[in-house]
Amino acid sequence: MGAGVIYQRVALIGLGLIAGSMGLRMKRDGLAGEVVGTARTARTREMAVGLGLCDRVTETAAEAVAGADLVVLCVPVGAMAAVAREIAPHLAPGATVSDVGSVKRAVIAAVGPHLPAGVHFVPAHPVAGTEHSGPESGFPTLFDNRWCLLTPDGAAAEAVDRLARLWRAMGSNVDQMEPDHHDLVLAVTSHAPHLIAYTMVGVADDLRRVTDSEVIKYSAAGFRDFTRIAASDPVMWRDVFLSNKDATLEILGRFTEELFALQRAIRTGDGDMLHDYFTRTRAIRRGIIEAGQDTDAPNFGRAPGPVTE
Amino acid sequence: MGAGVIYQRVALIGLGLIAGSMGLRMKRDGLAGEVVGTARTARTREMAVGLGLCDRVTETAAEAVAGADLVVLCVPVGAMAAVAREIAPHLAPGATVSDVGSVKRAVIAAVGPHLPAGVHFVPAHPVAGTEHSGPESGFPTLFDNRWCLLTPDGAAAEAVDRLARLWRAMGSNVDQMEPDHHDLVLAVTSHAPHLIAYTMVGVADDLRRVTDSEVIKYSAAGFRDFTRIAASDPVMWRDVFLSNKDATLEILGRFTEELFALQRAIRTGDGDMLHDYFTRTRAIRRGIIEAGQDTDAPNFGRAPGPVTE
Repeated sequence: MGAGVIYQRVALIGLGLIAGSMGLRMKRDGLAGEVVGTARTARTREMAVGLGLCDRVTETAAEAVAGADLVVLCVPVGAMAAVAREIAPHLAPGATVSDVGSVKRAVIAAVGPHLPAGVHFVPAHPVAGTEHSGPESGFPTLFDNRWCLLTPDGAAAEAVDRLARLWRAMGSNVDQMEPDHHDLVLAVTSHAPHLIAYTMVGVADDLRRVTDSEVIKYSAAGFRDFTRIAASDPVMWRDVFLSNKDATLEILGRFTEELFALQRAIRTGDGDMLHDYFTRTRAIRRGIIEAGQDTDAPNFGRAPGPVTE
Repeated sequence: MGAGVIYQRVALIGLGLIAGSMGLRMKRDGLAGEVVGTARTARTREMAVGLGLCDRVTETAAEAVAGADLVVLCVPVGAMAAVAREIAPHLAPGATVSDVGSVKRAVIAAVGPHLPAGVHFVPAHPVAGTEHSGPESGFPTLFDNRWCLLTPDGAAAEAVDRLARLWRAMGSNVDQMEPDHHDLVLAVTSHAPHLIAYTMVGVADDLRRVTDSEVIKYSAAGFRDFTRIAASDPVMWRDVFLSNKDATLEILGRFTEELFALQRAIRTGDGDMLHDYFTRTRAIRRGIIEAGQDTDAPNFGRAPGPVTE
């Protein structure tokens, strides 16, 4: 598609799955004059260079942002404030600061106050990822056909458009959203489902009468889908829940209410209620497949596992 | 592997995903002299013949079981008693009756009393399936490397061994289990996760502030895994919950207790508790992958969807 160079120098602060995938895509398609990265540990920095996801790494975030026209904070949400404080004095005038956090109101509150005048702040959330983490898990097509949500909160239109152009060039569809609305929508589509999956896997792990080995052997029955979600990065998810507390607790409250109604239907033998409920939920799956957001292949098109006997 | 003909005539009562996959596999590998099928609707019977998953269909279950040395009940659990009553007078002496129901204690109670002396009853549960239903969703490799659990409850060893041989020839690993234990294990690995997924999808569908379209567009964030589970057959699942009431409610009780503890940690800002919990649940995923019960490919190896803009 030949989008060309969109930013002269992009600084990636934090080098995990998302930054890794951004770096690989920007380098593959020549979207940035230079990609500079930084991470807390020397091991991650070396790995990032080895994987070719940035041109150069620096030991500190302050060094990384020097002369960058785009700075992307790719650290867990709970670390954003400290990073913003550190980089603020070193930002180039006119630079855009963005992030990839899964919550937006808390990031705006943590980062916004530290940024100097003349810097554009355009928070972003690429709704994409896998259960794997670390720069070695990145791949350049991670964002293809996924949505990237911008919550610009008053940033200059030109800066917003330029960032949107980068995300489109990296394969995403782009939408704008109000931060609180973003946090509520994501509480439904992501945060509550993750907490529920973590909980169910935790329950299985706890049950002494059902040995680990049985839970694992017979996991094909639905549970294994939950374990995938519950294998996501613990630090990232701790921070998501702590920083999107209200919306997550609201959705979990609705969930519990509904779960109790279904439990009551099971207890009283109300088969019609259960059947109606289960019929209604089928429709939403069809919508997701029609929208190109998931595969219609059975079991997600998983290949059958190797036969062990 | 050349297992050869294991039964001379297999009668499949009910022709959905499981029966369809059994029929295709038995025919592919020559495991049965003849496969006879029956289903309530003419449309399903015609489809089964068209798909080549049985040699012959009959209008009634009574006709289908005549002369069969294996009869497999592949109907929803709630329909098992009526089918058993219908076929009982027509069963060949020495025949084996089995089933593929996801609960075992209730099936034993529903079917057992109807069967005449001289017939072997070997309940079975192939722990395999997809979110799709109907005979057209069947495929011959559905059972490869999945477990099939037999709960023979006192049946003759010879009859149990022969059925185990058939399931192994269809690709499964085979285990024996006590019926109540089976129902508890499956409540953990399958029944509770399904109810939870149905609930979460129902909540999303209900939320008026979060439009359908947003839930669908941003579903890549975890929710879409739930929608797959919640697209499973409503009749089958209604019957599973009604017939495995006690174990399901017990596990859901444990789940709710645990969910409340996590909600409390979110509310009070107890990041250490959340982090420890989320770290522990990662291990179980590794176990499942090592046991060959799921793929390690990110997002289950889903292909990225088509780019829509």
